[in-house]
Amino acid sequence: MANSPAVPLAGTPPFTVKPLAGRRGPTPQQDRAARTKAQVLIAAAELFTANGFRHTSVKDVAERVEMTKGAVYFHYPNKEALAVAVVEHLYAKWPILLDEIRAEGMTPLDAAAAMLDRAALAFRDDVIVQAGARLQLERPHIDAELPPPYVDWTSLLTELLTAAKHEGQIKAGTDPAAAARALVAGFFGMQHISDVLQHRADIVDRWQEVRNPLFEAIRA
Amino acid sequence: MANSPAVPLAGTPPFTVKPLAGRRGPTPQQDRAARTKAQVLIAAAELFTANGFRHTSVKDVAERVEMTKGAVYFHYPNKEALAVAVVEHLYAKWPILLDEIRAEGMTPLDAAAAMLDRAALAFRDDVIVQAGARLQLERPHIDAELPPPYVDWTSLLTELLTAAKHEGQIKAGTDPAAAARALVAGFFGMQHISDVLQHRADIVDRWQEVRNPLFEAIRA
Repeated sequence: MANSPAVPLAGTPPFTVKPLAGRRGPTPQQDRAARTKAQVLIAAAELFTANGFRHTSVKDVAERVEMTKGAVYFHYPNKEALAVAVVEHLYAKWPILLDEIRAEGMTPLDAAAAMLDRAALAFRDDVIVQAGARLQLERPHIDAELPPPYVDWTSLLTELLTAAKHEGQIKAGTDPAAAARALVAGFFGMQHISDVLQHRADIVDRWQEVRNPLFEAIRA
Repeated sequence: MANSPAVPLAGTPPFTVKPLAGRRGPTPQQDRAARTKAQVLIAAAELFTANGFRHTSVKDVAERVEMTKGAVYFHYPNKEALAVAVVEHLYAKWPILLDEIRAEGMTPLDAAAAMLDRAALAFRDDVIVQAGARLQLERPHIDAELPPPYVDWTSLLTELLTAAKHEGQIKAGTDPAAAARALVAGFFGMQHISDVLQHRADIVDRWQEVRNPLFEAIRA
């Protein structure tokens, strides 16, 4: 990923799936194509984040990666396909993040909090996340089927809070789905307001202000 | 307001400031002009809500109120001026709502909750509020100076929670400004997600899920 101009696509194949020595892996040509495709995606994410969907063109993306428009079209048939790919890459991050957190052996309740804490950092630091968030807001103006927003996060947190309830970590009266929806609402509103007012520079402090009372209200 | 096609502009002069009998009030011509202007604004709000700023034209607004484009331009010089007027009308609603709530003699903490509860209904039922919320999201694409979002709500709630703290209604350790920011974040995220997923049909239930833990966490 040394050629990538910005945030690495953590966990996105084929970058994390390295061929073992002696096994049959991708050819050097395939490696180069995958690297190029990732560069194109990141350039598109940077432009979508800065300028939005409407004011980004495939020509802009091609210029940013110093390729021809044709080379970009080889990987993504149009601007809509780039937007869909950015949002799909964003959504692919969260299950990977959850696997990482599970591997650390936290309780389900701590895992729910850690997921959101690390997501806050990703909204501040990861251009794929920033671009995906902006594209989701612009979805009425994008002529493509973007994955639906908010529902994955809500199910993921509902699952963790249900496990936390079974383990007695949250109050008996708490509805895990309702608590998950409240966390997603608070997180989404917090990151958006932080973006509009401070370009997310204050996102960590703002998230503390939302997470602490919400977790305090459900913790057993 | 009988001619108005949708939600009345509650509290917007000159509709609430009726001339007293015997006093010099607006002429019938002025009354008619003000009514027309309000109709234009509501038609614009309906179109902005349904189609967004970009896909709304002054011609669409004129057709909706069965006027010529010239008649619309007489009141608003361009589409940007209509967008600014909608957002300003939205922001003018909240201090009026607060005055109404204060007149009911609530404690500051109950007033803060009532403000947000009634705002949730307004997001569901009031086309000026809906249009203003959509225009705020589209502000990167609107070539006009819209009033800044979120900050008025945050100051208003900070003021109420500071008064609540002085009266011992909230926990001693609570920072009123941080609690206000958390409430605004939760409210904004909640109404947006409810809009995207359910056209705000479930906003009252979703708001309960956010407000209850947040108020529970600060209440003394």
